Amino acid sequence: MSAAPGSNAWLDELTWDKDGLIPAIAQDAETGDVLMFAWMNRDALARTVETGEAVYFSRSRGKLWHKGEESGHTQKIREIRIDCDNDVVLLKIEQVGGIACHTGRRSCFFQRYLADGRWEAVDPVLKDPKEIYK
Amino acid sequence: MSAAPGSNAWLDELTWDKDGLIPAIAQDAETGDVLMFAWMNRDALARTVETGEAVYFSRSRGKLWHKGEESGHTQKIREIRIDCDNDVVLLKIEQVGGIACHTGRRSCFFQRYLADGRWEAVDPVLKDPKEIYK
Repeated sequence: MSAAPGSNAWLDELTWDKDGLIPAIAQDAETGDVLMFAWMNRDALARTVETGEAVYFSRSRGKLWHKGEESGHTQKIREIRIDCDNDVVLLKIEQVGGIACHTGRRSCFFQRYLADGRWEAVDPVLKDPKEIYK
Repeated sequence: MSAAPGSNAWLDELTWDKDGLIPAIAQDAETGDVLMFAWMNRDALARTVETGEAVYFSRSRGKLWHKGEESGHTQKIREIRIDCDNDVVLLKIEQVGGIACHTGRRSCFFQRYLADGRWEAVDPVLKDPKEIYK
């Protein structure tokens, strides 16, 4: 973040919550599948733009999280959008390795509501997480 | 919410934040376009399932918000998914009227980041908001 003052005006245009965060949705740029949801702070979004790969802010670990830093399943940025209230980010990405979820599935949204009041995992595990996180 | 105790076990499986809310993403079931992002409380999600139309919780107004109640642009539920942490909801919907955004655009995510550090509205207004909200 060595840029000159004022050059981050595009970050100032966003509405950050009281914790300095903004929700971020990652969508497969080709298929349109929603792959995951996470949070960003200013630094995460700035680094995402700088590096061309998705960087989130891990609320549980309290630090930046370069998606794929352990798994290799990075997300290459194709396009970044924001919504009408400037308070949600949508990343259109290429999912390296085809797996976004830590469970080894393509998308984190693999549980579907069934009419009888149950959630069911409906998408396959593509790779054993033990093989992903060695 | 007149259901017998215990019948909302599927709601208990979700992780609600300290305000009792969960993020919700609405995606066009046909095209895969991400149309909007909002929040739900337990009652909103229960009513969404009961009515087959998206009901959110408006944080600004502090009450349930049946999407389209003013505009007529309701969202018919095709599928409901949750993510691996049970703390984000993904609605696959049919957008009645083809307009999800209060600006009269199809999607709320109509602003794209340009390489020179600007956000630009890149999608057309399909209908004048004055004609939507009379």
